[in-house]
Amino acid sequence: MSDARFAKIYTGDLRVPMRQVNLSDGSSVTLYDTSGPYTDPAVETDVRRGLPRLRERWIAARRAAGEPVTQVACARRGLVTREMEFVAVREGVTPEFVRQEVAAGRAIIPANVNHPESEPMIIGRNFLVKINANIGNSAVTSSIEEEVEKMTWATRWGADTIMDLSTGDDIHETREWIIRNSPVPVGTVPIYQALEKVKGRPESLTWEVYRDTLIEQCEQGVDYVTVHAGVRLAYVPLTARRKTGIVSRGGSIMAAWCLAHHRESFLYENFDEMCELLARYDVSFSLGDGLRPGSIADANDEAQFAELRTLGELTGIARAHDVQVMIEGPGHVPMHKIKENVDLQRELCDDAPFYTLGPLVTDIAPGYDHITSGIGAAMIGWYGTAMLCYVTPKEHLGLPNRDDVKTGVITYKIAAHAADLAKGHPQAQAWDDALSDARFEFRWEDQFDLALDPDTARAFHDETLPAAPAKTAHFCSMCGPKFCSMRISHDIRQDAIEAGLAEKAAEFRRRGLNLYVD
Amino acid sequence: MSDARFAKIYTGDLRVPMRQVNLSDGSSVTLYDTSGPYTDPAVETDVRRGLPRLRERWIAARRAAGEPVTQVACARRGLVTREMEFVAVREGVTPEFVRQEVAAGRAIIPANVNHPESEPMIIGRNFLVKINANIGNSAVTSSIEEEVEKMTWATRWGADTIMDLSTGDDIHETREWIIRNSPVPVGTVPIYQALEKVKGRPESLTWEVYRDTLIEQCEQGVDYVTVHAGVRLAYVPLTARRKTGIVSRGGSIMAAWCLAHHRESFLYENFDEMCELLARYDVSFSLGDGLRPGSIADANDEAQFAELRTLGELTGIARAHDVQVMIEGPGHVPMHKIKENVDLQRELCDDAPFYTLGPLVTDIAPGYDHITSGIGAAMIGWYGTAMLCYVTPKEHLGLPNRDDVKTGVITYKIAAHAADLAKGHPQAQAWDDALSDARFEFRWEDQFDLALDPDTARAFHDETLPAAPAKTAHFCSMCGPKFCSMRISHDIRQDAIEAGLAEKAAEFRRRGLNLYVD
Repeated sequence: MSDARFAKIYTGDLRVPMRQVNLSDGSSVTLYDTSGPYTDPAVETDVRRGLPRLRERWIAARRAAGEPVTQVACARRGLVTREMEFVAVREGVTPEFVRQEVAAGRAIIPANVNHPESEPMIIGRNFLVKINANIGNSAVTSSIEEEVEKMTWATRWGADTIMDLSTGDDIHETREWIIRNSPVPVGTVPIYQALEKVKGRPESLTWEVYRDTLIEQCEQGVDYVTVHAGVRLAYVPLTARRKTGIVSRGGSIMAAWCLAHHRESFLYENFDEMCELLARYDVSFSLGDGLRPGSIADANDEAQFAELRTLGELTGIARAHDVQVMIEGPGHVPMHKIKENVDLQRELCDDAPFYTLGPLVTDIAPGYDHITSGIGAAMIGWYGTAMLCYVTPKEHLGLPNRDDVKTGVITYKIAAHAADLAKGHPQAQAWDDALSDARFEFRWEDQFDLALDPDTARAFHDETLPAAPAKTAHFCSMCGPKFCSMRISHDIRQDAIEAGLAEKAAEFRRRGLNLYVD
Repeated sequence: MSDARFAKIYTGDLRVPMRQVNLSDGSSVTLYDTSGPYTDPAVETDVRRGLPRLRERWIAARRAAGEPVTQVACARRGLVTREMEFVAVREGVTPEFVRQEVAAGRAIIPANVNHPESEPMIIGRNFLVKINANIGNSAVTSSIEEEVEKMTWATRWGADTIMDLSTGDDIHETREWIIRNSPVPVGTVPIYQALEKVKGRPESLTWEVYRDTLIEQCEQGVDYVTVHAGVRLAYVPLTARRKTGIVSRGGSIMAAWCLAHHRESFLYENFDEMCELLARYDVSFSLGDGLRPGSIADANDEAQFAELRTLGELTGIARAHDVQVMIEGPGHVPMHKIKENVDLQRELCDDAPFYTLGPLVTDIAPGYDHITSGIGAAMIGWYGTAMLCYVTPKEHLGLPNRDDVKTGVITYKIAAHAADLAKGHPQAQAWDDALSDARFEFRWEDQFDLALDPDTARAFHDETLPAAPAKTAHFCSMCGPKFCSMRISHDIRQDAIEAGLAEKAAEFRRRGLNLYVD
């Protein structure tokens, strides 16, 4: 990106960061910015020192004033927090609207008091659709430095939250580095670390081991935790005849535990205590869908919806403890079965934000599952899902590298933005309009700069027409000068105006249906 | 692709080609095959000699028997042609069903009598959703050999038809090479060549120049032609206040002509004569949407729908001449406005097959428009569009190379297949099931071979775990052995069966709703 054309700006008293794209006609477009201090040339960052503690004073002031810890508790008491004000500026709404949505449980602001480095963001159906990028080393490969680099890389391209799904050695240390350097909320699946503590044997898990792990992660600053408390003993048999069984790691671990002990899930049974724990840190629940379908054949089946009903029950308990909650969703779902997921989740979970993985709309394209899932993600976002968990091209096949992370994030920004457009979000439409204006007026540099991925747009253009003059040419390589429809369109517009045809068009319009009968 | 695992097979008396994937458990899956003789090691192809003339005898026999020329004329007389029989085998339906759909105009079989090399295929909402790949040199770059190679490459990955959109020199010769070597129907936009004949000046076009060009292309064997006869003089002013004017090349050329002469379109005025001409060769109309929206802001506007109404009128005229017709559609459309396009097209054009370009669901991602449009394509396919025109990553930026063509085709195969699944097509579901079975049973090689792109799936897997034993491992690099949910699932299935829990699950199922209250 050519830095002169992009500016990091800070809005209002709370200095909310935005990305300003300066266009060649003197105007500018301001975009939501997830990239943190890394994209501000005026800020010096040091991965060993961590990011500035933006929220430290806000949290201390609340504590001093004896205000509640969690955002939802504040909201319910009528308090507008700094985090809510910050979010309101980012979203272009009033702080009071933010407060109402949080109070109602329709939106959450994942913000652990021990992660003061994070820039507040909100997840809810009445706000911009968000995306999450998964990172995390596995037992097989990758290093801490790589994971931190993946985080900054993912947020640079637009990830609104990241999840650290590490399962290998050094889980604690990897997470520490990520949290201290992350400008976005960090989510985890604590059972992965708990399982490491019992040497990978699901049946050896206990509530105590799990609780200690949870405390460790809350202390460290994790903003939201995936908890598969909806995988109950009675539901496990429902998966036995599935095409692809249980495909959630956390879900399969809990199912194995339930079966081994033939006992109800310790996560379900100790849910109240978990709520008390999370409330002390304002850690949000992301209630996991451990029984999500792993194939088109298993979509919307009894196992999946039985668990969803339990997640609805748990939502009520969490809210009673003033803990913020969102609900995870599938998975693999054909297009015609997507909407039912959103409608049922909304009904069963009393409008808690929905957070879905894709869904993938077909199983037949390993290597392209960012696309199979991007289709489902756009649709489910339009239907009301608040956050979309990205899928990279390596899904089902291997671990994503740097390019895969970028491809996953860009694909999901497309899906989220398409959903915002379909929901009629005014900010979303303005972005498309600015880019289309640039395109129609042959402002090539502006078109590149307004693209989700300016580097790729510019590189693709230059591949066919590398010369600098081509960037001011009033045509492109696709049609060549003689066939350029947009150039002809400009002539038409001119002719039409001169011939007074624009007025005639307005007249047609007034006559309504007769328009079609000339 | 490892050839031993794939076989080209021929079904029935008409020897309909299919792709057979031989799985490691001894079973096999048979897939629709667009790749022509090129993927049959037993057939020797020579680009200078062209493909075998599969349909030559069928056409000659019909001529000798005094039967009608066009498929729709035959269908209406109750005749089932060889082409219909061939199509019936490919689609897994009866020849009589094919005849009925063609007779009703709900489907077309684009098959010029002068393109006997083509393998018959059908385009209609009650059949598998098809995809088209555009190729064609432009004034700026590329060669004949490259275009022929793009065609065989596109059909190898699944393109059902190709359109030759050449606009530069050697249009006639490029097209000759492509048609003689193409196993799939070839479409064109004749006005591009007509414009070359008048040195690129739209105002110099005449009906006579256009008609001669059309005759030349019909003689050569073009199977369907895009004709922008719906761009009428009165509609041009409707585009004057658009954000992106007219973005169809053919549309802009015709609009310029109408304005320059201030006369009704010569394509509209001579439509009857055009029908008579096309009927002699069984060339199908693809009625072009010259006023399609080129930006989200312009979607579903008056200009677009005024033209669509005229396309409906022209559909009736073409059918009266026993000419097959499909209708082209947009373009750039946000998700919530897609369905209206299909519903209105169906109503106005009396169920003629719809053939859409995408649509792109946002403007902000140049460089990724295969994805922005793949989302819209999947949805519009589900809603009833019969054929999807692909978009490559280079759209709006440059000319697609070999990799871009493949990416565009694979993305559109995903969209078309997702639509087939959502429409409940039994063949489609079987493919997903076979792949998911292979995935769940850790048959890695089968999973790769069943993928839309086996090469990429295998390469992505090998990037993380290259060793051969990893292909038989019961886990993958994403979770590692300890966390493999599918491995745990197998244990659960085993345990559940042993514990008689499967029976308990069946009991739950019988009790219906009580399932959720355990």
